[in-house]
Amino acid sequence: MGSPRSPFDPVANGLDKDFQLTRYSDLKDFGAKVPQDELLQLLQTVKDPEEEKTAEEIMLQQPNYGIGSDCSVVPLQHGGLFLVETTDFSYPVVDDPYIMGQIACADVLSDLYAMGIMECDNMLMLLAVPQTFSDKEREVVIPLMMQGFKDIATVAGSKIRGGQTVLNPWCTIGGIATSVCTLDKIVCPDNAVPGDVLVLTKPLGTMIALTARKWLTVPDKKKKLNALLTAEELERGYQEAVFNMCKLNSDAASMMATYNAHGATDVSGFGILGHAEALVRSQKEEVSFAIHNLPIIAKMQHVAKGFIDFKLFQGRSPEVSGGLLIAFPREQAASYCKEIDKMGSSAWIIGIVEKGNRTAKVIDKPRVIEVTTKIM
Amino acid sequence: MGSPRSPFDPVANGLDKDFQLTRYSDLKDFGAKVPQDELLQLLQTVKDPEEEKTAEEIMLQQPNYGIGSDCSVVPLQHGGLFLVETTDFSYPVVDDPYIMGQIACADVLSDLYAMGIMECDNMLMLLAVPQTFSDKEREVVIPLMMQGFKDIATVAGSKIRGGQTVLNPWCTIGGIATSVCTLDKIVCPDNAVPGDVLVLTKPLGTMIALTARKWLTVPDKKKKLNALLTAEELERGYQEAVFNMCKLNSDAASMMATYNAHGATDVSGFGILGHAEALVRSQKEEVSFAIHNLPIIAKMQHVAKGFIDFKLFQGRSPEVSGGLLIAFPREQAASYCKEIDKMGSSAWIIGIVEKGNRTAKVIDKPRVIEVTTKIM
Repeated sequence: MGSPRSPFDPVANGLDKDFQLTRYSDLKDFGAKVPQDELLQLLQTVKDPEEEKTAEEIMLQQPNYGIGSDCSVVPLQHGGLFLVETTDFSYPVVDDPYIMGQIACADVLSDLYAMGIMECDNMLMLLAVPQTFSDKEREVVIPLMMQGFKDIATVAGSKIRGGQTVLNPWCTIGGIATSVCTLDKIVCPDNAVPGDVLVLTKPLGTMIALTARKWLTVPDKKKKLNALLTAEELERGYQEAVFNMCKLNSDAASMMATYNAHGATDVSGFGILGHAEALVRSQKEEVSFAIHNLPIIAKMQHVAKGFIDFKLFQGRSPEVSGGLLIAFPREQAASYCKEIDKMGSSAWIIGIVEKGNRTAKVIDKPRVIEVTTKIM
Repeated sequence: MGSPRSPFDPVANGLDKDFQLTRYSDLKDFGAKVPQDELLQLLQTVKDPEEEKTAEEIMLQQPNYGIGSDCSVVPLQHGGLFLVETTDFSYPVVDDPYIMGQIACADVLSDLYAMGIMECDNMLMLLAVPQTFSDKEREVVIPLMMQGFKDIATVAGSKIRGGQTVLNPWCTIGGIATSVCTLDKIVCPDNAVPGDVLVLTKPLGTMIALTARKWLTVPDKKKKLNALLTAEELERGYQEAVFNMCKLNSDAASMMATYNAHGATDVSGFGILGHAEALVRSQKEEVSFAIHNLPIIAKMQHVAKGFIDFKLFQGRSPEVSGGLLIAFPREQAASYCKEIDKMGSSAWIIGIVEKGNRTAKVIDKPRVIEVTTKIM
C-alpha cells in the first residue's frame, strides 16, 4: 500500500507540470474542520435527548451511540443485529490523486475499526470535482482518486456500490462505511476504568510532514527547513506520513477484543488530544486521560520545534487518517503491542487512565518516541 | 410540511437584509451535477464487473444493485436480510435555511422510497458550511438547516445519528439514509414489461419556479416575467414547488407493492427524461419508455415557453426532490393513482412501456397537465 509506486507525474499523465491537487482547497494548513467546540454546539440541534443511554441500557445490550461518536450504532428490529455507520470526507492533503483516494478510504474505514468492527458490508463514495478542472484534469485525476479509494476498500474486503458526485470550487473525497453485525463484534467505546493504559497505533506528525513537503516549494520556507533537516530526511518523513495515512487500522482493530479493549477512537483532524478529549467525555466511569508519550514520525519533532509548530507537543497538531487510541487493562496492553508488532504493524503505550472528571491532557514535556515505520 | 410557516426573514434573525442562502454556490441555474454521460463514464472506475447480476441471480433472491441505481442493495450474511443505502447532497435552491433542510432530507429519503422501502433505520447528515459565513450567519443559518432536515426525518420515522461537517466555499446539505430489511420490503426496479404504464407522483417544473423567483430580483428579467404571469401566480408557483420539494415520497412508495409496481426511480437533477433513461437502461426486459404527458406546476409552462426554457417540454429541466417515476401493469395504474389521490397526494399516468432497446423519449408535443397541489 502507498509506497512502491513511483510518484505521481502530472506531465506523464498529460497534465500541466504545475498541477497540484492540494491547490484545490484554499484552507490554511488544511484546517478544514469546523472548530471542535463549535461543532459540538451545532450538533445539539440534531441530538435527541432520549438517545443519551444509561449504563443500564447498555448492560441490556442496547447500545445506541450517535452524534459525537465515531460511528452511529443502531439496534435493528432483526434479532440481535446492529447497524453501524460512519461518514467522512475531506480535502486533498497530497498531490498524488491515487494516494489521496487511498488515504480517504482508509480514513472512512477507520471509524469502523475504532469500534473493533472488521467487516464493512458496503461503502459509498462522496466526491466533489473542482469546477475549474480542465477536461483533461477531470479525465485523469478523478479516475485515479476513485481507483485509490477502491483499491483500499478491496484490501479491507469491502466494495463501493454507489455514492454522490458534484461540482464544487474545492476538491473533496470521502465516503460512507456500513456494517451490520451482532453485538459481540463491537468493542463499545465507553468502558475505560482507572488503571487502564492508553495505546496508540500510528505515529503522530502527519500534518507536520505534509506541510514541510508543501513548504519546500516556497524559497524562504525551504531555506529554514533545510537548516533543520536534509532533503532526504524530509522526503523520508513525507513517505512515512503517506505510508501511515494509507494504512488501514485493521491489524490494530483485529486484536482489540482479544486483549479486552475498554474503548477506542481514531485520531484525525483534532489532534491526539482533541480525540482523547472526545473519547474521555463519552466514558461511563468518571475517569481522566493523561498522555505521557508522543510517538512521532522520525525527525518531525525537529521540524515542529524549529519551524512548523502546530502545537504538536501539546497534542493539538491535526493528523490525517491517524491511528487508533485505545484504552486497555494495564496487564493486557503490553501483550497487545507485542502482538501488533508481530503482525508487522505498530502500537505504543502512551498514557494512563485515572480517576477524574472526564478530561484529557498531555503532560508537560512528554517523552517523544521517534518512529521509523517499516515501509513495505 | 413546508407551508404554513411565515417566510424566512433575515433581519428578524439578526442577519443582513440581503442575506441569501442561494448565493453560496456560484453554479449557473443550479447545474451542480456532473453531466450524466460523463458521470457514468467515471463510475466505470469503481464498478465491479462481477456485480452485474443476471436474471437468474435475482430469481435466487440475491439482488445486488449498485452504482447507477438509486440505492445500493447488498445481501447480508444474516438470514435473508439486505442492506439498502443511499446518499445525496446538493447546494441551496431556496433562501430559507429551514426549508432547505427539509428539501435536502426529503431528497435523500426519496431514493429509499423509490425502492418501496418505508422504514429508514438511520440517517447521517452531510454539511458544508460556507467559510465566508459570519459568526452570526453560522449561528443562525446552520441550526435552522439542521432543524429542517431533522424535522422531515422525524416525519419519516427516522433519526439522525451522525454525519460530517466541513468548511467549504459553497454551502451543501445532504445525507445518508440506510435501511436493513427483508426482500419482501423491496420493490426491485428492473421488472418493467411491454404493456406497462408509467406513473409520476409529483409535478415537474420545480427548477423553473425556483429560477423565476430568483430572477424577480433582476430588473430586466423581472419585466419579462411580469409580462407572462402576475406576481401572485409566480409566488403561487414558487410555493407549489416548495411544497412538493419538501414532501416525502412516502405515500407514493407505500402503495407500490400493493399495486404490483414493476420498478421505480426518483426524479431529480437530470430531469424526468434523464431519470427515465437511467431506469429503462437497468431493465431486464428489452423495453423502451415513451412519455406522453407532462404534469407541470400550474402556469410554469408559460414561463418555460416564454422565457426560462430549460428544455422542460423535452423532459430535461432539472427537478429538485421530485416525485417517483413508476412502471405499473396497465390494469393497476389507474387504481394506484386513485388510491394515492385518496391519501391526499397525487399521481398521474404519463407514459407507456413498449418493446424496445432500453431508451426513453418524450413524444413531440406532449400533453401538459396543469397541476395545482392542495397545499395544506
